Amino acid sequence: QIVAAIEQFISAKQQPELSWQGITLSITAGPTREAIDPVRYISNQSSGKMGFALAAIAAQLGADVTLIAGPVPLATPAGVKRVDVISAEQMHQAALKAAQNSAIFIGCAAVADYRMAEIAVEKLKKTSDDALTLKLVKNPDIIASVAALSQQRPFTVGFAAETHNLIDYAKGKLTNKKLDMICANDVSDPAQGFNTEHNAVTMIWPNGELALPAQAKTELAKLILQQILQQYQMVEKAKLLV
Amino acid sequence: QIVAAIEQFISAKQQPELSWQGITLSITAGPTREAIDPVRYISNQSSGKMGFALAAIAAQLGADVTLIAGPVPLATPAGVKRVDVISAEQMHQAALKAAQNSAIFIGCAAVADYRMAEIAVEKLKKTSDDALTLKLVKNPDIIASVAALSQQRPFTVGFAAETHNLIDYAKGKLTNKKLDMICANDVSDPAQGFNTEHNAVTMIWPNGELALPAQAKTELAKLILQQILQQYQMVEKAKLLV
Repeated sequence: QIVAAIEQFISAKQQPELSWQGITLSITAGPTREAIDPVRYISNQSSGKMGFALAAIAAQLGADVTLIAGPVPLATPAGVKRVDVISAEQMHQAALKAAQNSAIFIGCAAVADYRMAEIAVEKLKKTSDDALTLKLVKNPDIIASVAALSQQRPFTVGFAAETHNLIDYAKGKLTNKKLDMICANDVSDPAQGFNTEHNAVTMIWPNGELALPAQAKTELAKLILQQILQQYQMVEKAKLLV
Repeated sequence: QIVAAIEQFISAKQQPELSWQGITLSITAGPTREAIDPVRYISNQSSGKMGFALAAIAAQLGADVTLIAGPVPLATPAGVKRVDVISAEQMHQAALKAAQNSAIFIGCAAVADYRMAEIAVEKLKKTSDDALTLKLVKNPDIIASVAALSQQRPFTVGFAAETHNLIDYAKGKLTNKKLDMICANDVSDPAQGFNTEHNAVTMIWPNGELALPAQAKTELAKLILQQILQQYQMVEKAKLLV
């Protein structure tokens, strides 16, 4: 009994101060695919590993997690509710629905900015022309739509994956899209970011930033979640004081 | 000793009449990816499973197999030499090299017909415009290049993956690209073809055709290889008679 009490004491000490217990969290992950015709599509290098790591760790920490996943060959983390989507429009719909039932929303997916103006019903045939022009139109901006919710708006965290001027672009996105936080992710280095096991991000919020060095995505996920929760709880406390 | 002799006899009876022993075979498999910018690309639904199944079975049957694989998350079959490529231009180069050292070439990859006229060095930014136009140019036709080799030309087998007018298109490709055989593959049915475990094809050659019904890709691979080998050996015999 004494041993059990000591173990309980130690385990309580090891728990982070901030707990995700009972917090509803939605995360988007992976790429989207925009169909050109029945067999061809436009997509991107996102592997979904960062978003899946965030979902796995948050669920382990007690959060009630919904993971909205683009087409990636990854197993669903234990305890996570998964919604599979293909296109940006599908992800937009699923994300808005989940966001309105969440305290916190993390947009980690690499959503295609554009889709085909028209999807061909039959497989496009090669023509005698040497050139082909694809006409694209803008997709809905999912993270901006979530941040712009007038009712049931969650604490909204975005990701900015850039190859150049990373921090500048990320700060611009934070402001323009009215996000609460953004994780700036340099994807120009082949050793980190898209389709690797490691990553480094700089987390930016309206009055602060924190650089998290390169490490395994699961380790990084813990640090990102800790920072998000801390900032979320500060904002919630501030609301009560108003 | 008697048992061993009987086992050897039975095993000899079970072997197909035609053996792949010592035959050099090159196979392309999977999709290609055509970069738009450092993170975005154009690709297609091909999973590579059909080409990998052909490579696996051919190696089991004794062939000396080179597998030129687009970006797919599949394990290299036992005894197969694998060359990984991303784009159609890379696959073109690797395929021509392998083809000239092969008795038989099977073009099973779903090669992108078009690539970007120019690949952006930096990630493309969303513009204020609602539309974006991608200018594409034609990729080299890999299977036609192989079939057009004037020296060291292998027996050349293509695949035609179509959603409409399958047999007509396949016969057109057989003739126009001067192939020795083509496997016509209906990819309009979501239960077979791209990204599934099953497939059905119709094999077509200049003076015959054979419909192989829907079955597991590994089973289908055996039948396809048997038909290819039979036709290859008939053509080789005919050459000797000239």
